[in-house]
Amino acid sequence: MTDASLFGLDNLPYGVFSPAGGTPRVGVRYGDSVVDLSVLLDDPVFATPSLGAFMAQGRSRWTRVREQLTDLLAGDVPDAALHPVGDVRMHLPFEVADYVDFYASEHHASNLGRLFRPDSEPLMPNWKHLPVGYHGRAGTVVVSGTDVVRPCGQRKAPDEAAPTFGPSRRLDIEAELGFVVGVGSQLGDRIGVDEFAEHVFGAVLLNDWSARDLQAWEYVPLGPHLGKSFATSISPWVVPLAALEAARVPLPGQDPQPLPYLRGREDWGLDIDLLVEWNGEEVSRPPYREMYWSAAQMLAHMTVNGASARVGDLFASGTISGPEKHQRGAFIELTWGGREPVTVKGEERTFLQDGDEVRISATAPGTSGGRIGFGEVTGTIRAPMP
Amino acid sequence: MTDASLFGLDNLPYGVFSPAGGTPRVGVRYGDSVVDLSVLLDDPVFATPSLGAFMAQGRSRWTRVREQLTDLLAGDVPDAALHPVGDVRMHLPFEVADYVDFYASEHHASNLGRLFRPDSEPLMPNWKHLPVGYHGRAGTVVVSGTDVVRPCGQRKAPDEAAPTFGPSRRLDIEAELGFVVGVGSQLGDRIGVDEFAEHVFGAVLLNDWSARDLQAWEYVPLGPHLGKSFATSISPWVVPLAALEAARVPLPGQDPQPLPYLRGREDWGLDIDLLVEWNGEEVSRPPYREMYWSAAQMLAHMTVNGASARVGDLFASGTISGPEKHQRGAFIELTWGGREPVTVKGEERTFLQDGDEVRISATAPGTSGGRIGFGEVTGTIRAPMP
Repeated sequence: MTDASLFGLDNLPYGVFSPAGGTPRVGVRYGDSVVDLSVLLDDPVFATPSLGAFMAQGRSRWTRVREQLTDLLAGDVPDAALHPVGDVRMHLPFEVADYVDFYASEHHASNLGRLFRPDSEPLMPNWKHLPVGYHGRAGTVVVSGTDVVRPCGQRKAPDEAAPTFGPSRRLDIEAELGFVVGVGSQLGDRIGVDEFAEHVFGAVLLNDWSARDLQAWEYVPLGPHLGKSFATSISPWVVPLAALEAARVPLPGQDPQPLPYLRGREDWGLDIDLLVEWNGEEVSRPPYREMYWSAAQMLAHMTVNGASARVGDLFASGTISGPEKHQRGAFIELTWGGREPVTVKGEERTFLQDGDEVRISATAPGTSGGRIGFGEVTGTIRAPMP
Repeated sequence: MTDASLFGLDNLPYGVFSPAGGTPRVGVRYGDSVVDLSVLLDDPVFATPSLGAFMAQGRSRWTRVREQLTDLLAGDVPDAALHPVGDVRMHLPFEVADYVDFYASEHHASNLGRLFRPDSEPLMPNWKHLPVGYHGRAGTVVVSGTDVVRPCGQRKAPDEAAPTFGPSRRLDIEAELGFVVGVGSQLGDRIGVDEFAEHVFGAVLLNDWSARDLQAWEYVPLGPHLGKSFATSISPWVVPLAALEAARVPLPGQDPQPLPYLRGREDWGLDIDLLVEWNGEEVSRPPYREMYWSAAQMLAHMTVNGASARVGDLFASGTISGPEKHQRGAFIELTWGGREPVTVKGEERTFLQDGDEVRISATAPGTSGGRIGFGEVTGTIRAPMP
């Protein structure tokens, strides 16, 4: 998956890196190299430790820079602008403004409903009418490779009389795609469902680490909080929307038809294949094309009440799960609440143990007939605080 | 309530203002004047449009500046540093990092439980074990005086087969107190319940505008989203914790005793009296001293899983409601879901109409034997977008 061919001229994802001894700046990934845009394009907007200023310049500028890079990279790139990808350090690519996490996979929402509320209908009555979502903690979004300290908190099993305090015993992942807003909107305005590409700069892989025992006890009636807020990891490379043109597909189908503000003329289903590896072993292949709600619908919904959007807003799809067991993007689903362990490197496993590493990667069809890569989002679990 | 005596030397709240023709800078309110700290103290930390840099300097610096101001303001203040409060424009006093809203009034949580879930126990089983809270939208926190456009969204009454789209018909307020983090914490660390005053700079009044019909339809299972995210208003003056020393009281009592991480040696109940006026008429007097959970417990809980805190984090109490009807801090409670209208300027009213203005103000005992003021948070409802 670190195949250089996944980072050809039809991909060109943006990130923030520092070369050995240098300060963070904006670069683009090309093959096995990171191209320093502050050198190649000699523009101060790229000499900053965030994509924010560039993203805020808007779609016509994004298009122009992509055309420029396509031309320049096809020729000779000055050595001063080139760094082997293994020699640089990657950073969080932008300052996260608000972070919203949706719940857009019907398979995931149904599975979680069955596991969290076994005595009720798995899907809530609102689920097929609106993309359900909630705000997460922007300040704990971290870049791939950041260790995740096992969170402590209150846990109460149904058969226990009172909660106890301690490390989570049901630490899980959620394999997701995150979308990054470049151009925001004013308070009182809306972003229409067909204005998606004017506002969204690109996409990242996202792992919404989840402490299921903390979550199950705390989440009524105001939703998840400490079960999620300890860490959310994203991949360092933001794949521009323009690179995803060949991945655009119709949604699987929405019934009932959503309200008019959620109906668009354009297809924003995305044919992206994810891969989840647990300690180096493949455990799942979540298919993004199975998602019920599109990212364009998520953004339209999020702003239909007049809420403003800002550069750096991050909104995520929720766990990507397909209809098959091997397509589930969270371990609570894959192991059915821990009752059906999976085999990882010869051991039976349910939830995450200290020292475990999770790697999520993804590819999609590129516009040149091959495939493009998202890189990866990884994290290793560290022992809890005493 | 704009009585100059509420802003004596025992108060000295901080804000960001611009004088006529000038840029935003940090000031302190003293009587009927705003004192320009960038002039009086000649320190660049006050020549910025946010309290952030000053707040990040930490508690010993906050103490030193307060002592300095107490001395200087008792003498002659140079005219160049003084502006009549009516001549300046107030701004959002800091950049909001993450915004978390709690639900810490037992009276409010019980009332809302009865109204939203009439067939269940009003309080969820977790409510007396942890301060329930959730993340709200930081990007739509606005300063007092900002108009609030009536939000549109999906609404479905229980007797309707499907949701419809349109302006909220049940637009409401929540009278709250907000706490502002000055000194954050690292990812993986915790803020202990007795470390509150090392981290929290001060408090503001907060109105968490709420569209009850949007909220009721959307909030299962992930909590409130569009019903709240369109606007949250705060007062422009941040009252420093040091000014609230005389307001500190024991909590009303917690049973069962909370887990050890929520038990503190210090009292952080606060004897603050709020006043809610609807189109100029008093409709409620919420008493903050009735709150079940303290702000110190909220912060300890919020970080016990290792979530980091940042300068500018804002966390709020949730609606402040006392045991009496006239002490309820939300109109849905005051009018019992709209079934028991209140009289406002001779008219029967339930939820907010376009053109309505709400004003929330508050006072507390000061350290000199009198009272100190929080100023006010106001907002006027504007007609929805077409």
